[in-house]
This record gives sequence, C-alpha cells and structure tokens, in this order.
Amino acid sequence: MRIDSALLERRLDELYAIRAEPDGGAYRPLYGGAWATAVERVERWLKDAGLKTRRDAVGNLWGRAEGTDKGKSIVTGSHIDTVRRGGRLDGALGIVAGLTAVEALLEEKGKPRRSLEVVAICEEEGSRFATNFWGSRAIVGAIHAPDAAMAEAMRERGLDPATVASAARDDIDTFVELHIEQGAVLESANVPVAIVKAIVGTAHLEVTVTGRPDHAGTTPMDLRLDALAGAAAMVQAIESIAKSLGKPAVATVGKLEVEPDQINVVPGKVVFTVDLRHSDLGGRRALEERIRSLCATISQERRLGLAIRTLQEKPPVAMDPDVRALLARAAKECGVQAAEMVSGAGHDAQILAARCKVGMLFVPSVGGRSHCPEEHTDPGHLELGARVLVRALELLAY
Amino acid sequence: MRIDSALLERRLDELYAIRAEPDGGAYRPLYGGAWATAVERVERWLKDAGLKTRRDAVGNLWGRAEGTDKGKSIVTGSHIDTVRRGGRLDGALGIVAGLTAVEALLEEKGKPRRSLEVVAICEEEGSRFATNFWGSRAIVGAIHAPDAAMAEAMRERGLDPATVASAARDDIDTFVELHIEQGAVLESANVPVAIVKAIVGTAHLEVTVTGRPDHAGTTPMDLRLDALAGAAAMVQAIESIAKSLGKPAVATVGKLEVEPDQINVVPGKVVFTVDLRHSDLGGRRALEERIRSLCATISQERRLGLAIRTLQEKPPVAMDPDVRALLARAAKECGVQAAEMVSGAGHDAQILAARCKVGMLFVPSVGGRSHCPEEHTDPGHLELGARVLVRALELLAY
Repeated sequence: MRIDSALLERRLDELYAIRAEPDGGAYRPLYGGAWATAVERVERWLKDAGLKTRRDAVGNLWGRAEGTDKGKSIVTGSHIDTVRRGGRLDGALGIVAGLTAVEALLEEKGKPRRSLEVVAICEEEGSRFATNFWGSRAIVGAIHAPDAAMAEAMRERGLDPATVASAARDDIDTFVELHIEQGAVLESANVPVAIVKAIVGTAHLEVTVTGRPDHAGTTPMDLRLDALAGAAAMVQAIESIAKSLGKPAVATVGKLEVEPDQINVVPGKVVFTVDLRHSDLGGRRALEERIRSLCATISQERRLGLAIRTLQEKPPVAMDPDVRALLARAAKECGVQAAEMVSGAGHDAQILAARCKVGMLFVPSVGGRSHCPEEHTDPGHLELGARVLVRALELLAY
Repeated sequence: MRIDSALLERRLDELYAIRAEPDGGAYRPLYGGAWATAVERVERWLKDAGLKTRRDAVGNLWGRAEGTDKGKSIVTGSHIDTVRRGGRLDGALGIVAGLTAVEALLEEKGKPRRSLEVVAICEEEGSRFATNFWGSRAIVGAIHAPDAAMAEAMRERGLDPATVASAARDDIDTFVELHIEQGAVLESANVPVAIVKAIVGTAHLEVTVTGRPDHAGTTPMDLRLDALAGAAAMVQAIESIAKSLGKPAVATVGKLEVEPDQINVVPGKVVFTVDLRHSDLGGRRALEERIRSLCATISQERRLGLAIRTLQEKPPVAMDPDVRALLARAAKECGVQAAEMVSGAGHDAQILAARCKVGMLFVPSVGGRSHCPEEHTDPGHLELGARVLVRALELLAY
C-alpha cells in the first residue's frame, strides 16, 4: 500500500511548528499550552480521517475505527510530549505515521475486521513532572493517585485527578509503534528499518568515592588519598567492562561532581552516576556485578571510601515474538530485510507489554542524534517505516 | 637559648580567638575587621617587647630593634591574613615565633649588632581580592596601582593607595621565616624540623576535552565519543606521570566539570584543571611536556577534541645557600639534624628573594592538615622551631 509521504512530512512539520522554542526545537511538556495545542491538532486529523475520538482520564487521545468483529483492538501511536529543545520526530512520528496509515487503510480497505485505534499518549519523557510513562502507566492501570502538582496541572486542563483509574484498558490485543532509533546503529549498518527484539533494562547507580582533601603543593603523590584519581580509574574500568561484555551492554558515567573542586586542592570526594543497560536481565546484573566488584577493588587498592546506591532499577522487556514475526513479514513484503535490534532507550511499549502484545519498528536517526533540534531521519526511511507499519496493521486488523 | 613555649602558645591562641568563625577556624581577610584587630594585637606585643613599630603604605606592620652597626636589616615574620576557616598556625606562627624570639634575644643579649626586625605581612593567601603576595610584592616594589576594590578597602583602613610604592625596601639583608609544613612529609619521616631548599614552581593548566553528547541507552560503546571517559584516562595518566617522575614532582587534577552532566547522556564535554609543581624549572617543564603529550595521544586515540590553556605559570625559587647552611647550623646547635625539603606551597619568601637573601624553617603538620581548623603542630615541635629560629637570628644579628 501507498503512503502519502508528503502528507506525513507536512503533518510532522505542523506539529513541530507549534510554539517552537526560541532557541530551537519543540517543547511540549505534559498539560502545557503547546501540548494542548498539539493534542487538538491531532484530534482534528483523527476526526478528518473518520475516526471516533475520545480523551481518557489522563488526557491520552484515542481515535477509533470500529471493527466488524467483536474483540480486542489493534492500536498504534506514540507519545505527544517532548523533552525541552526536542526534535521533530521523537513521539510525533509514531502518532503521525499511525494516523496516516490508518487513514490510508480506511480509505483503501474500508472498515476493518478488528477495531483499529490510533493513540496519542499524553506523556512518556518525564520532562515536566517527576514521573515518566504517565500515559502508558494509566492505560495499564498502574496509576492511582496523582501527586498535588500533577493533580493541579490536570485540573487546569479540565481533567479530574480522582478518575485516573478509568483510563485503564484491558481490551487491547496488540500495540505497534513506529519510532526513530535515537542512536546510530542502523545508520552505521546501513539498514533502513529494524524490528525491536527487546527494550533494555536500566539500572542507575550513584557511586560516592571518599578520599582526603589535601594541599596540592605540599602533599607528595604517595601520601595522597585522591578521590578523583580513584573515580577516574573507576570510570575507565566501567567503560572497559561494558566494552568487554559486548553488545548490547552499555554503561555510562554521565554525572560527576568533585569536592571541594578547587584548582590547588587534592579532591576529597567524588560522586558520580552509572547508567547500566542490557536487554537481558542476567546480562545487566552481570554488568552491574562486575562494575561493583572492580570499583571495590580500586577503592581498596587506593584506600578510598566507597558507597554505591541504586537509584533506579527497571527490568528489560521483550517484544512479543508473534508481533516481531509479523513485522518482519510486513517489512519483507515492502521489499526490505529488516534488522532486529535491542532498544537502548525506554518506550511506552515496555509498559503496555504488561497488558497486551507489543511490537516496535525503528527507522534510522541521522548521526544517531535525538532529543535535540538536529534530530532527523531521511524522508525515504520515514516513508518506508510508515509503509511497513501500514502493512503490519493491515495484516493485524483486516 | 630558651624560648617561653607557654607564651608562644598563648599568643597563638589569642590571635586564633579574634573573631573566630561560627563554623570553626579563623578568617582574617586583608583589611577586614578581624585582620585589623589582629594587627593591633601584634603591634601591642611588638611595642611591649621594646620594638619600634610602624605600618607601611599597604599595611605591613614592622617592629624594629636598631642595630649598633649601620647596614641592612635581618628580618623575620610571616603573613597575618588567613584563608576562610583557616587554622591557628599558618602565617600566625611565623609572626608569633619571630616576635617571641626577638623579644628573648633583646632581653638576654641586648641591643643587636645588625638591625633586627619582625614583620607581620598584610596579605599572602589571596582569600579576599584577586591577588596574593600583596604584602611581599609591595616590599619588593612590585605593586604600582591597586585596582578600585583594593583601593577602596585600603582607604577604609586609612591607607592611601597612591603611596604604595613607598612600601618598597632595599635595606633588608636576610629574611628568615618559620612556617608549618602544611603537608605530611616531615610527620611521615619523623623529622621535627626542616630547612627549605626551594619553593616549587607552579603551572596551572585548563584542559578542555570535547566529545559528543549521546543517548546513554541508544549509543553502543563503540560509537561513542565520551569526553568523560577520555578525561578519566587523562586524569589517570597525569597521576602516573607525576608518580613516575618522582619527588618533588606533583600533579593534581583539582577541578573537573562535565557537560551536560545528566545521568542518561554520554558526556559531550569535560573541562578540568591541572596544578603542576616542581622545585626545578626543567623538572616542571618536563612534567608539563609529558602531560601535554599524553593528553594529546589519548584525545587522538579516542577521536576527542583537546585544548590546553595555561592559566598561570610561576618559576621555582631557590632559598639562599648561605642562609640554608646557617639554619642547618642553628638546628644542629639545638641538638637536631634538620632535613632539607622543597616547599610545595607558595610563601612570601619566594617574592622577597628578588631583593634579599631568604631562608625558611618548617615544622611538621599533624596529618599534613592545613587551611582548616584541624591545622595542628605538636607543641614540642613548635618550641623546637622557635629555638632554631632564635639561634639563627642570633647568628645573623649578633
């Protein structure tokens, strides 16, 4: 089936132009003005495509084409919120491609056998409140009482915080989402489309290394307890361990703070974070175990204090094998051999997997850039991704 | 000669008690209230000891016992200012021991052959204005026009900024200072007193490492340009180079900043400082050369950007060989074999060396701690240091 590539690009442009940030990029934090305008715009597109729209208790927007059969729905879509200075495609692509695909199917194939829905999930990024996956967690019934700030923001948008439980659904059969990769794996491998095998599990650690602040001039090298030299050895070791374990293991020291942070004082304390990811829980745990062990060895060798605290721990989530096979078939019928890959980023699918079958398609990100105004995907790749999506939805719903 | 150890300790206590900081330690920034009170206290002690006092154009306080011979003076003393939360001994010891020594000499030996002076230098630490060695630079005639903030602070203390040049002296023969080591070399070696051979030269570098900020989940290890992993390798290399060059080379990475400093973003940029010291200019340059070279290699291997900027560069200053020999003799006559060592910290002597012979005595710092309320030296060591000082002054002035 054909996809109107120009329409797809135009709709992405329209969403991206809504209250563009003065310093570049889009910013649509949950329940904000730009967010509300974007939801209205998508609602109009859904209605124009002949879908019946509704908003649930947390502000997820649904557009539904009733199927001839009874039974659970086939759903596609993505999140409508963005990070600050976000790009044109993260989230937006899945919504725009989903509605454009369903519109094309309805036009060409008429009423589906199974109910077919497009969803604009209200929040995934966590860029306004101390939460993320707000929309998908509501869909799986995992949200109970919003906190005061969230409740206030909901009321400002005419939503009743007391009714969040009503957003839960148990009538979704399959959720399929098209998303940009947000990394450079596909570009490097010159592959135009991939099927996600699993979404990585993430652990966030906070490591505190304690030495002794000393005068940088009067303390010989052998009498120092330099917390930063120790932390640097740990940063090096963390990188080496992740490399030696091989893909899809990744480990990142993203934040690091030195005390007292003075040019002429030997650092007495360093606090840094480690972001650990692996598609396999055992793999993630092995990675963490080796990192903890090597940090302990380094701190002992250097007579430094060491404390490691787990800030967050999320298990990896596998995509449904049947949906993966169906997506591979759809890609093949579009003339392309899709790669399979692990998503290093989190997505709503990992939350929705608790209640329905899930699958995801990735298209390449130029230079691997995302969460920035430079976020870009070749229009040919966007069109291909949308074509695979429309074929997959056809196979699922017709 | 005997030194009244109890008097020495009591005077140190008195100075330390002047407007003690609420969170511990003393703070006597240049021209502040606590500074002024401390100068007045020392002035009274100098007068009580029979010395003729005067304050010069920048507020250095001098106490003079006229010699029977014409000719240049023998001077002892130290700086009266402190860092924030400073200790009881840094600077204060040299003033209190100097005046207690001169007082004892005058009492026991009478009028000296050469004029003997005690100086409380107004500023050395650089803890209030963007300057340091303010007092000693004035003495060697190296200060011309104070900036606006300094001039205002001088006027508030009744000093005329237009007259700073008048503080310069060319009639000092020898300057001898007793100071705490501020490191743990003497304590580790179990040596009670040391003679300073040289004051290290210092270079401060600022190193900027540029990589690419990437998503911590979606960017495999082999596609990263991680500025922090590169900087960590450099921090490690800097430590190794200083260790392998051996004493007295020291290199310290004291400040380090990460951008964007987010838990789930691969660091795109790191800026860190390097403090390099060596008693020999060639040694310091060799240290810097090897550090620059290894940082360049690491940045090339990791395809990272590298920029290194020199923030400050001060040459090492040797102490006068005759004064060193005289101090060694004085120590021997006090029954102790003094060690010789390089001062890793800067001192007024390195400035005064431009105009007169200089020498310094160090006593051990417990645990190497300094610039903090825990700064402490065994009273027996303080007494010994003062005894060596008084004997040295006797040899020089009588």
